[in-house]
Parts: sequence; structure tokens; C-alpha cells
Amino acid sequence: MIVEIVNTGSELMLGRVLNTHQQWLCRRLADLGHVVTRQVAVADTGPEIQAAVRESLSRADLVITTGGLGPTSDDLTRELIAALLGKKLVENQEVLAHIESYFARRNRPRPAGTSVETFVPEGALVFINQNGTAPGLAMKVASGETPKAAPSSPDARTQIPSPKWLVMLPGPPRELRPMFDHSVVPLLQREFAGAIFVCRTLRSVGVGESRVEEAVAGRLQPLVQRGLEIGYCARPWSVDVRLTAAGPDASQLVREGEAIVQRILGDHIFGYDDEEIENVIVRLLTERRQTLALAESCTGGNLAHRLTNVPGASAVLLGGVVSYANSAKEKLLGVRAETLSQHGAVSEAVAREMVLCAREKFGSDHAIAVTGIAGPGGGTPEKPVGTVFIAQASAAGVSVQKMLNPWDRATFKEVTTTQALEGLRARLISA
Amino acid sequence: MIVEIVNTGSELMLGRVLNTHQQWLCRRLADLGHVVTRQVAVADTGPEIQAAVRESLSRADLVITTGGLGPTSDDLTRELIAALLGKKLVENQEVLAHIESYFARRNRPRPAGTSVETFVPEGALVFINQNGTAPGLAMKVASGETPKAAPSSPDARTQIPSPKWLVMLPGPPRELRPMFDHSVVPLLQREFAGAIFVCRTLRSVGVGESRVEEAVAGRLQPLVQRGLEIGYCARPWSVDVRLTAAGPDASQLVREGEAIVQRILGDHIFGYDDEEIENVIVRLLTERRQTLALAESCTGGNLAHRLTNVPGASAVLLGGVVSYANSAKEKLLGVRAETLSQHGAVSEAVAREMVLCAREKFGSDHAIAVTGIAGPGGGTPEKPVGTVFIAQASAAGVSVQKMLNPWDRATFKEVTTTQALEGLRARLISA
Repeated sequence: MIVEIVNTGSELMLGRVLNTHQQWLCRRLADLGHVVTRQVAVADTGPEIQAAVRESLSRADLVITTGGLGPTSDDLTRELIAALLGKKLVENQEVLAHIESYFARRNRPRPAGTSVETFVPEGALVFINQNGTAPGLAMKVASGETPKAAPSSPDARTQIPSPKWLVMLPGPPRELRPMFDHSVVPLLQREFAGAIFVCRTLRSVGVGESRVEEAVAGRLQPLVQRGLEIGYCARPWSVDVRLTAAGPDASQLVREGEAIVQRILGDHIFGYDDEEIENVIVRLLTERRQTLALAESCTGGNLAHRLTNVPGASAVLLGGVVSYANSAKEKLLGVRAETLSQHGAVSEAVAREMVLCAREKFGSDHAIAVTGIAGPGGGTPEKPVGTVFIAQASAAGVSVQKMLNPWDRATFKEVTTTQALEGLRARLISA
Repeated sequence: MIVEIVNTGSELMLGRVLNTHQQWLCRRLADLGHVVTRQVAVADTGPEIQAAVRESLSRADLVITTGGLGPTSDDLTRELIAALLGKKLVENQEVLAHIESYFARRNRPRPAGTSVETFVPEGALVFINQNGTAPGLAMKVASGETPKAAPSSPDARTQIPSPKWLVMLPGPPRELRPMFDHSVVPLLQREFAGAIFVCRTLRSVGVGESRVEEAVAGRLQPLVQRGLEIGYCARPWSVDVRLTAAGPDASQLVREGEAIVQRILGDHIFGYDDEEIENVIVRLLTERRQTLALAESCTGGNLAHRLTNVPGASAVLLGGVVSYANSAKEKLLGVRAETLSQHGAVSEAVAREMVLCAREKFGSDHAIAVTGIAGPGGGTPEKPVGTVFIAQASAAGVSVQKMLNPWDRATFKEVTTTQALEGLRARLISA
């Protein structure tokens, strides 16, 4: 089964927004056993949308479009696809009733622009939008049905060889995601048998991409000959090893491969699949019934933010201080003025005091403190931009690690946060 | 001039990573006057990469590929494109010397896998990778040159009609971005004259998408007839209005359009182009030489994180407390135990005490406090998941706003953070 995604939106082509639909839909579809073959993004213009959809329909069994179903004048997907497939747009009473009640419940008059949303291509399945007004749509494109193309188009006579489905979803993620789960998944389960497909990602820290492959590729070779596929993905401070397989032996192949990689990389593997290091920290602390406090300078709240993204973080994270100004390091944490003036805010001595103060103030089992220079300004020859001290404290004592992360501000914050969490993970698993 | 991007990587098609290259490259290219017409993502497999590149070369004047240039066995782009264009791979001494010195400087032996990176298609321009090992590559594809396709392919005889450029960039963003700026931009400036293209985005809060269009579309109509294009992009709690134009009148049209939208939406417009509301807050506080402190419960550090993403935030943000546990609200901030027990942590009374304590503890001009229920657990019939109290304090007094943001945890944190920052913006511009 061939699946393609067509994302529409001029804002995508102008680089004004990030296309999060691709990842989300590809991931959901892979979990259902349908790996997306191609994803295409085009602007909100008639010829581009029609050409992309026509080409995808000529290749794929399932085409999913995103965007262009809303009420504004640049929302053209519904009309263009109806025209492409030679379908009339007809008013749908269920959609009209939903939109009327959507605004009635909010005590707001219905904007005139939403009228276009009540017209759907003849014969289309309608997915009512639980989080907005524009409905999703699904159309079965019969075998041999010929999409209409502009006469000048070279592929005007493309034949669609077999019955296939075209699904149109609204652009806002808050509308698209629940609609996919509630309406599209049942359609796929009814219309397409998913192949057996298994994917497992092992996430490692502390080893470079080439070294990871050198270490594992040879040992995995016998499994590759039996159909296992291996992928490597390098990120700042971590490398993912992805094992995939299809068919009846898929689970067995992936399980054997995982055991081999696990044996070779050992504690370098911090987690699996979507697990971020913050999820691992919350899990490890929860298992140990231990608590954590934070004192952040240059990471500016990102440590707390990433940890509190994990549901259940409140059971282990007591809190943190973002002590950006020196006065905050003194007043909120209790770092001594002499330490700050003697060593400077970015120093091993201040990191050490910050972490001890945080642990004491919050009364936690563990504490992490970070002080450094995120840039772009603030560097000196002795302490260039990217210099950072990461301190860990627990009943077992204090340790401070000096790192140099001379990257842009956003990467600096992300990498330093990952390093600080990895330092705590190393402590927790070795204790 | 037609520009297409081909992103390669099985991790993209499996939904394991977010494709940030599309936005970044589209944005940079638009700024240079080249709006990308189509973006395609395909897996790391021979037929898919070759088909996508062949199709893009048949349509576009410039094709940029990302990924697949690294040292591991799934990095196939270089070999596949060389084969497609009938070029031999030859060892490049400059690349070899760069990779040797890259590992020598790090006191590490060169991994054997990096040898493949020293082989480049005959005649290709080589971009040395300042942040990694794999070089970027650029090839001029001469008019009439026919890409080789598998004999079974229906478009094996596609002719490339005129001279065009194929640029291959490495996948890691830290390598791709500097390489694009340092090596690809000069190539584009030499080979392609950029058209005049102007884009301006006005970012509004507090008005729905349909209402924004109802308010502005009619008034912009005369400019649309002269060539202005309008786009709308709805996000949680904000709507972007994008004005674009091409050609000699572009600046004038966009300037006139901006004045009209500005007049209609007024203070609903918080910023322009890439400006986030946190950038606006840092700018407004810097202009007023005022300082800010934060007390965050349910946003868990995201307010501090977003503000500290802004270079220069240290001049205005004194710091914050992430008071996740009740004990932290008492010990770090000084919220009274009676208030917590009488009203509960998620209450107007606690939000009020948090914001006053934060302002006093940090000695700041302004303070923001947030307490609420991010979910998924923790809701009650009286205070369902999504309930949040946002408090603002300054010399002018305290105000508390109750909101209901019943979304997933990540959206809850983002929207609540935006609302809290918008509350401060409203205070600052009305003062």
C-alpha cells in the first residue's frame, strides 16, 4: 500500500511556519503499519495543489491532504479538489448545524465566511470537526476515474489505476490530530489491512555517529541479511539507532537486533522510541521515590520546562529557581556575595553554592545547578561564549562538570539542558 | 525561477524527527527573492531519491537536497545522484585534508566510515563543512543532459530543458545552516538574479481568524487588484496576517496594506514577522528600563524559558521561581500556608500572593504569577483540567485573570504562557 501526504499552505513555502503535520501523520501512519512513501508541500494556489494531488493519486492508494479547508479566501483545497475530481459542492446540513451550534455555544454570531465550510464535494464522507468549524472530508476515487487537469498540463490524461482514498484534513494541529484519531483511523482500519511493521529506536548519548555504526553494524549484519533495516540519526549530544522490519518475522528480527545493540552500547542508551531524557529522569526518580530541585542561570528555565512537560513530574520535581540576575542568586538561593565577586557568576564555586543552596532550600534529594554564558554577548577570553558549569548534588556529595557549548543561543540551551539531565541520569543509575 | 527542495531520510517518513529544514530553507530562499514552489520528502532508498530528484530537475531551475551525505550506510544521496547524472565519484584531496584535521584537532582517530565522504561526483563544486565532516556539493546540470533512470521507470526519458543547479547539503541543522549562508548564498547570487519580493507578517492576538478577515479583506481589496497577496494563519490565541507582493511595486503595495491592517487591528497587533510576544516584552521592558520577575506553577518554567530565548533578556528578567510543590510556594516565595489550605493551590488568592511575593523577593518592577491545572490528571468538577489563574503585579496594582485552557499538556503550557505575556504587554502599552 502506497501512502502520500500533500501539505498545502503558502506559509509553508515562505518558511513562516514549521510543518509539524508531516512528522505527526507519518508517525501515526507508521504505527498503523502504513509507512508514508512521499510527502509534498505546495503553496495555496490552484495549479500547484491540483498538480500535486493529481500526481499523488496516480501513484498512491491513500492520499492525505492538510490545510486549505478553513473560512478565509486562501483556503482553496476543498474547491480545487472537487474541481479536479469533477464533483459538485453541495451544502451539508450536519456541518451547518455543527457550525451554528459551535458559535451559539460561544455566544457569538456565526461569521459569514464560515458558510463556505458547509459545502462539501458530492458523495464525500464528512468528519465533523470537534475542535473547530471546517469539516474533514474523505472521498473514494473509483478506478479509472480521471482527474481533470488544465489542458496545457502534460499529464492531463493520467489514469488512476485502482480504487483509492483521498482524505482532506484541516490545517490547525488541534483540529487535525483528534480528527485523524477519531475519524480517519476507523476508515483506514475498515478499508486497508495494515502490514506488519515494527520499529524500535534506541537512543544513545556520549558516542559519535560513526562510532555507533562501527560498533553495531557488523554484529547486526546477519539480521540485515534476514530483512532488518538499520538507520542512524545524529542529534546534538545523542545518536538514535532505529531498527525496522516488515513481515511475519518483524517482531523477532527487531527484538534480536535490540538485544545486540543493547549489549554493545549498554548504559549509553538512555531511552527508547519517543522517550526523552526528561521522561527517563522522571521515571527513575519516581521509582526511587526521590525528589529534585533546580537552580538555573543560563538555561533560563528550560530544565524546569522540559521536566514539567512530562506528565507526573509534580511527584518528583519540587521546583526551581531561575536566578538570572546575581541579586536573584543571592536573595532567592543564598549564594554568598563574596563567592560571586571573587569567582564571577560563571564559575565552579558559584555552581557549587547554587546546587547546595537549591537542595537545602527545597529540601530535595537531588539538585542540579547550571551557570554559564549562552551568548551572543557576555564572553571573555578566559570564559568564552558557551562556557558552562553543571553541578549535581545529592546525599552522595557534589560534583561540578565544566563544558564548552559554543553554539547559538537556542542550541546552547538545549544541549546544556540535555547534559545536565544526563549527569543526573548517570548518578541515578550508578547509585 | 523555480526552486524545489528534496528532503531525504527514512526517519522523516517514519515520523521520528521533525523536518526543520523545510521552514529554514524556504525562509532563507524567500528572503533572497526565490520562493520555493515545492518541497518533497522521501525515504533513504535508491528508487525514491532518484525519482524525486529526477522529477524536481525536470521542473525546477534550482533543486536543493538535504541529508544522506554522512558516513553511515543509510547515507546514499551522494552515490545515487552521481549515478542519476552519470558522474563518477572521485576522491577530493581538500575534503580528505579537512576530515583528517577535523579528527586530529579533537585528538581522535579518523573513523574508517568517513572515507566515503571524501569521494565527490566528478566536476562538483565542494563546500567544506565547517561544523562536521561531510562536504556539501553543487553541480551544474547542463541543458539537455538526461538523468539516467531505471529502464522500468515511465519517465526515463525526461529531458532537462535548460541549465540548472543541483545543490546537496548535509542533514544536521548545525552543519546545513552555516553552509547555506557561507557557500550557497554566494552561488545563488552569482548564478540567479533574485526577483523583488516583499513579505510582511502582522501578528495579532485576541481576534478569531474569520473576524480578522472580515475586518481587513474588504479594505485591502483595491490593493489585491494591484497585485497584493494576503494570507491568514491561525495559531492558538493568535492570527497572523501575511502581506506579500512581487515586482517593482512590491514595497509600496505591502507598505500600504500594512498601514490599513494596522489601522483596523490596532493594539491587537503585537508584533511583526518572526517577532514572538516574548521578544516584544523584552523590548518594551528594555525601553522602559523596567524589570520582571516570575512565579510559575503550571507553566513549569516555560515563561522563563521563552523570555530567556530572547538575546538581551538578562537586562530585564531578574529571575523566577518554579514553585511546583506547595512547599516551594511557601518556602521560596512566602505564600502563606493558610491561603494554600483555605483556597487550594489553584485559586485567585494564591495567584495574588504568588505575584506579590515574587515582585517583593526579586525587587522587580513587574511580576507575573501562574497557577493552574495542566493535566492530564488533577482536575475536579469545580476546577477542571485547564483551569488557570494568571496574575500581574506592578506599582499600579495587582490583577488576576481566570482562564480555561482545556487542551493537551503541551498546548496548555504554550497558550497559558502566551496569555500571561499578553497580559503584561497590555499593561505596558496602556501605562
